[in-house]
Amino acid sequence: MSRLDVTEKIIATKVAKGIQWGDVAKKVGLSKEWTTAACLGQMTLDARQAGIVGEIFGLSDAEQKWLGVVPYKGSLPTQVPTDPLIYRFYELVSVYGTTFKELIHEEFGDGIMSAIDFKMDLQREPNDAGDRVSITMSGKFLPYKTY
Amino acid sequence: MSRLDVTEKIIATKVAKGIQWGDVAKKVGLSKEWTTAACLGQMTLDARQAGIVGEIFGLSDAEQKWLGVVPYKGSLPTQVPTDPLIYRFYELVSVYGTTFKELIHEEFGDGIMSAIDFKMDLQREPNDAGDRVSITMSGKFLPYKTY
Amino acid sequence: MSRLDVTEKIIATKVAKGIQWGDVAKKVGLSKEWTTAACLGQMTLDARQAGIVGEIFGLSDAEQKWLGVVPYKGSLPTQVPTDPLIYRFYELVSVYGTTFKELIHEEFGDGIMSAIDFKMDLQREPNDAGDRVSITMSGKFLPYKTY
Amino acid sequence: MSRLDVTEKIIATKVAKGIQWGDVAKKVGLSKEWTTAACLGQMTLDARQAGIVGEIFGLSDAEQKWLGVVPYKGSLPTQVPTDPLIYRFYELVSVYGTTFKELIHEEFGDGIMSAIDFKMDLQREPNDAGDRVSITMSGKFLPYKTY
Amino acid sequence: MSRLDVTEKIIATKVAKGIQWGDVAKKVGLSKEWTTAACLGQMTLDARQAGIVGEIFGLSDAEQKWLGVVPYKGSLPTQVPTDPLIYRFYELVSVYGTTFKELIHEEFGDGIMSAIDFKMDLQREPNDAGDRVSITMSGKFLPYKTY
Amino acid sequence: MSRLDVTEKIIATKVAKGIQWGDVAKKVGLSKEWTTAACLGQMTLDARQAGIVGEIFGLSDAEQKWLGVVPYKGSLPTQVPTDPLIYRFYELVSVYGTTFKELIHEEFGDGIMSAIDFKMDLQREPNDAGDRVSITMSGKFLPYKTY
Amino acid sequence: MSRLDVTEKIIATKVAKGIQWGDVAKKVGLSKEWTTAACLGQMTLDARQAGIVGEIFGLSDAEQKWLGVVPYKGSLPTQVPTDPLIYRFYELVSVYGTTFKELIHEEFGDGIMSAIDFKMDLQREPNDAGDRVSITMSGKFLPYKTY
Amino acid sequence: MSRLDVTEKIIATKVAKGIQWGDVAKKVGLSKEWTTAACLGQMTLDARQAGIVGEIFGLSDAEQKWLGVVPYKGSLPTQVPTDPLIYRFYELVSVYGTTFKELIHEEFGDGIMSAIDFKMDLQREPNDAGDRVSITMSGKFLPYKTY
Amino acid sequence: MSRLDVTEKIIATKVAKGIQWGDVAKKVGLSKEWTTAACLGQMTLDARQAGIVGEIFGLSDAEQKWLGVVPYKGSLPTQVPTDPLIYRFYELVSVYGTTFKELIHEEFGDGIMSAIDFKMDLQREPNDAGDRVSITMSGKFLPYKTY
Amino acid sequence: MSRLDVTEKIIATKVAKGIQWGDVAKKVGLSKEWTTAACLGQMTLDARQAGIVGEIFGLSDAEQKWLGVVPYKGSLPTQVPTDPLIYRFYELVSVYGTTFKELIHEEFGDGIMSAIDFKMDLQREPNDAGDRVSITMSGKFLPYKTY
Repeated sequence: MSRLDVTEKIIATKVAKGIQWGDVAKKVGLSKEWTTAACLGQMTLDARQAGIVGEIFGLSDAEQKWLGVVPYKGSLPTQVPTDPLIYRFYELVSVYGTTFKELIHEEFGDGIMSAIDFKMDLQREPNDAGDRVSITMSGKFLPYKTY
Repeated sequence: MSRLDVTEKIIATKVAKGIQWGDVAKKVGLSKEWTTAACLGQMTLDARQAGIVGEIFGLSDAEQKWLGVVPYKGSLPTQVPTDPLIYRFYELVSVYGTTFKELIHEEFGDGIMSAIDFKMDLQREPNDAGDRVSITMSGKFLPYKTY
Repeated sequence: MSRLDVTEKIIATKVAKGIQWGDVAKKVGLSKEWTTAACLGQMTLDARQAGIVGEIFGLSDAEQKWLGVVPYKGSLPTQVPTDPLIYRFYELVSVYGTTFKELIHEEFGDGIMSAIDFKMDLQREPNDAGDRVSITMSGKFLPYKTY
Repeated sequence: MSRLDVTEKIIATKVAKGIQWGDVAKKVGLSKEWTTAACLGQMTLDARQAGIVGEIFGLSDAEQKWLGVVPYKGSLPTQVPTDPLIYRFYELVSVYGTTFKELIHEEFGDGIMSAIDFKMDLQREPNDAGDRVSITMSGKFLPYKTY
Repeated sequence: MSRLDVTEKIIATKVAKGIQWGDVAKKVGLSKEWTTAACLGQMTLDARQAGIVGEIFGLSDAEQKWLGVVPYKGSLPTQVPTDPLIYRFYELVSVYGTTFKELIHEEFGDGIMSAIDFKMDLQREPNDAGDRVSITMSGKFLPYKTY
Repeated sequence: MSRLDVTEKIIATKVAKGIQWGDVAKKVGLSKEWTTAACLGQMTLDARQAGIVGEIFGLSDAEQKWLGVVPYKGSLPTQVPTDPLIYRFYELVSVYGTTFKELIHEEFGDGIMSAIDFKMDLQREPNDAGDRVSITMSGKFLPYKTY
Repeated sequence: MSRLDVTEKIIATKVAKGIQWGDVAKKVGLSKEWTTAACLGQMTLDARQAGIVGEIFGLSDAEQKWLGVVPYKGSLPTQVPTDPLIYRFYELVSVYGTTFKELIHEEFGDGIMSAIDFKMDLQREPNDAGDRVSITMSGKFLPYKTY
Repeated sequence: MSRLDVTEKIIATKVAKGIQWGDVAKKVGLSKEWTTAACLGQMTLDARQAGIVGEIFGLSDAEQKWLGVVPYKGSLPTQVPTDPLIYRFYELVSVYGTTFKELIHEEFGDGIMSAIDFKMDLQREPNDAGDRVSITMSGKFLPYKTY
Repeated sequence: MSRLDVTEKIIATKVAKGIQWGDVAKKVGLSKEWTTAACLGQMTLDARQAGIVGEIFGLSDAEQKWLGVVPYKGSLPTQVPTDPLIYRFYELVSVYGTTFKELIHEEFGDGIMSAIDFKMDLQREPNDAGDRVSITMSGKFLPYKTY
Repeated sequence: MSRLDVTEKIIATKVAKGIQWGDVAKKVGLSKEWTTAACLGQMTLDARQAGIVGEIFGLSDAEQKWLGVVPYKGSLPTQVPTDPLIYRFYELVSVYGTTFKELIHEEFGDGIMSAIDFKMDLQREPNDAGDRVSITMSGKFLPYKTY
């Protein structure tokens, strides 16, 4: 058994039972973004969270233990993702990557936006010309220091 | 002469004269995100915009014409970016890619968030534990349709 | 069970029973292009469509549910396809890629042809010198906008 | 001097003089698709065609000779194109590749659509919901034979 | 079941029974080159051919049907083959690739040698300094045309 | 100066003067295949051969010396060639690679066809259905031995 | 002019004048590790630091300004470094990567060792069996948090 | 059975029983760094060590024998690791690689830091601004010699 | 069943029974280098050799037949090997590759050292500063010839 | 100026003046293997050696200084070398890599053959069936140790 096995079981159960990520998140009591990433094998759950997730998806004790193990992260099978939805995010990094860099350095100096001390929120943004996906990201700025 | 030559001249002039992207954007009258991407060779300027940018960076008429040519986009030299600031965005796609996919499909059904009908805003978010980078993205949802 | 398992079952049943994609499409009531892509695991079916496809290929209820899950798209095992028929399409992108770009920009300005709001039709074109494959593609033009 | 040098001169002259591919094609007396591909270094011109193109772009005799040399084809700098417009075509091959394969084999048997005995036409398709790009491709079917 | 399964069964049976490709070809009534490629999963057999091959290798009806399905072609596990015998052919393409190109264009103009309308013959060529492998390839020349 | 510089000068001179590889080969007194490969920087010329080639292409003494230096071989810019003519040869290796392997081993046992002790001949093969490219390759069989 | 040009000038001047990194660091008043990385184009210098480095390596004002620009980081020309000294560090990541992961998670829980809030010290460690390289790294632990 | 099977069993047992690497190391009587690497399939255990590890993880005699076989080393599934914790180490090699090289050569001359005659120690470093990961590496310097 | 299955059985049996390659070679009556390569699936055994190896490792008749089939060669899972022992050989090719080329050409002219008509011997070389690995390789020189 | 520039000058001078590596080695007083590698930019020369090499190839003082700088090693432009002579060595690593590993571990236990504390000798080995290339390598065995 591995974390991957547990992730696959969660996904299969979700399809079979028609479970919604939003409902899982409400029961766990955290954001849908973090909860979904955790169920997809990218985050680590504590015992209470694993218990709730385990009940929803019918996981054994052994499987719940795996939810508490820090996973080997990275959810994509190739360096450049082939799925069109995910590729668009890769394209944003490709097209706007140097823009992110210039503007963050102009505002903060040398350093990065943390992808660890990070949270995000994804919402539907109603719009007459067609609804939009709105994503707000917030990551701590970490400065390079001299030493 | 090519668009790349013009981009390199803009960057070199920015360093030499200490120009700020925010100031360029104000003169162009558009967001700092779009303006910076355009100056870095990722967007296409109309004649008025090219004239303003040309004046700021001392571009010749020939160079300004290149600003109006649609560039071959993609600002990164490798499939996986090596620069730590840009890599963190790649890492977000890698770690959260399947989460983006699940949540957008749960909300909207099959389709993508457009990276073309797209805008974004990058701001400093003051925080006692260290200021944060806040990025708001908005992209039109494009549904797959049957035919 | 996964979407891939269902796709493999569909393909195996097609071979065993000698089913034609054209016939499947007629029963589903949609184009053979969309229907084939859906059966090959690249599109998402609604309940009615999944029911028809399920009946044709003898899929269980659980398998039909998977047809309604948005798949991780991308049907090729390598970045450059090795199969000669599919490679020729890759070659067209390689040889004519910059031509597509120049002509679309000349006609429409900066933007792209959508691969999502997209449909196509593939037909036999009789010809004395040997019949031809005729493909008509139609994708919405999506303009980059300033912001 | 090389074919690449001539291509770059053609592109630079096009930008400087504001030449349109459609006008070049009319003067050459061929389609805008073939003419553009030829000017971008992917096709071979005969002496008459090279003379017309040479006059439009101010090419020397030596440069015109290069237009008559069969080029090393392939117009993209990477296996997976980064430019969003060109990437969408790559995505179509990725998502619909196996569909192309199935439908062509269902109609014609084992073989390929030629990318050599091939022509195409790209047009604006007016549409109330936003104009569309329409591309018609026609390639000779080439059957595998036993021997 | 898939075409790959059938190919593996053919290979395993060949080893177990000591079958020779040359004998298979004689029974099929075609060249050993085409017959071997077909048995290795690269060509498509008609019902008669599949029946003969099926008898030789003890294939079930279901397995014989798979021989009639057009396979996803390409027989190598990596872009650059590691097997020394096959690598030497890759090396010939690498060392002589531009020579093939120059000489075919010099003789025929712009176009290609078809790999579809193609046949070949592989023979032992006796030689006092050590016997040689002699391969004769014949592919139709396909010219690029203007349009 | 390097061998590559000399190769580029030879190619440029060929275009400028309209030289034919066949004529060069006749003057050198060797096959057009070897002579073309040598002029393209893949083979090593002796002093007499370098003198003849040097005279045809107007090479200096220093440049002629480089023709006598063993080059770093491999004429393709990428692992998988993008040029359609050369790609077809790569495709033959991909599709027929395992067939070459099986048939050579069936005839000769374990070993390879040498790509060094190798020669080839490329000819036009007249054909009512369209002329064909005929290539005859001959390489010494080199057996693996036990030790 | 670019940061890369300045880096190359620094290296060339170092060789020509026999400058030692340790001496540069002392004049700058910072560690030899940070100072060397900065001179090699991986860190950003403030005006005072740039002035000192500029004096040592004879940099113009324009060149000194480039030292204050945040560089595109990543000092290696390939994903897997070929240089034996640098490769050994890559090998440590390869062999010990999962060990780093297990032990840091065992001690700290889910999170990472920062490569930004990071410093290191490299020393000679005398040893009778041959002196050793001793490297001490210190990076802030950054925990993943739920949200 | 293979070494990989034994590694997977060790990891699964660790999760199921909640074993700590630190405790395993104490029982083996060696550092937690070496012991963890060994349990993860990167080092070779002698019979005594394999016996202790085997008892902790419930390994059969056959499985213990595999712990004594030198493994094929390298613990990462891709050239560039996707896991954020491990990637940071890769990033250090990328950003500081040339710095390591310069400083070791300045101190020792041409040669490398051995990754074989190597040991390391990983500790928590308490810090008011957030605890840090401290890693001390010690590798023998191996000089290149003339011959 | 495949050759790979037989190789894996040989390796597993070797570990289980503590068999030494040197002893296998003695029984086969050939060098330990060739015998080991053969057992690892890189060489082809005749019936007598397969019988001896089969007896040592408890192989069935069917498995012994596979030892007589020419394998698809290449023993490494990646283009650049990750295992430190094997990587050092790759590094020798990388660092000394051009030196091999220069010295062999200086001595022999244009051609190669055969990797087929090749043998080698690996020995322990006692040395007070630490024993050494001594490898003697002997490959036939194969000259390129004109034709 | 860089080490690469000096290497290119050495190679160009060698061709122009017809210098032999063997003669350079004699004047330097070291092996032809080390001397050639050093001249090709893979080893570091001391002042005396650089002086001798500088005189032979007409290097300036500045160029001689670069010979004393430790180079970024690795002499091949691609991960898999395309040159046939060098490829054969890569092929030996590929085919015999696991054999090297097994036999060195059988003789010495876990560890590697050093590629740093390494020397080699390349000789012509006369043989009636065609002369052979004989290469003797000697590298110190470096054992992994527990800690």
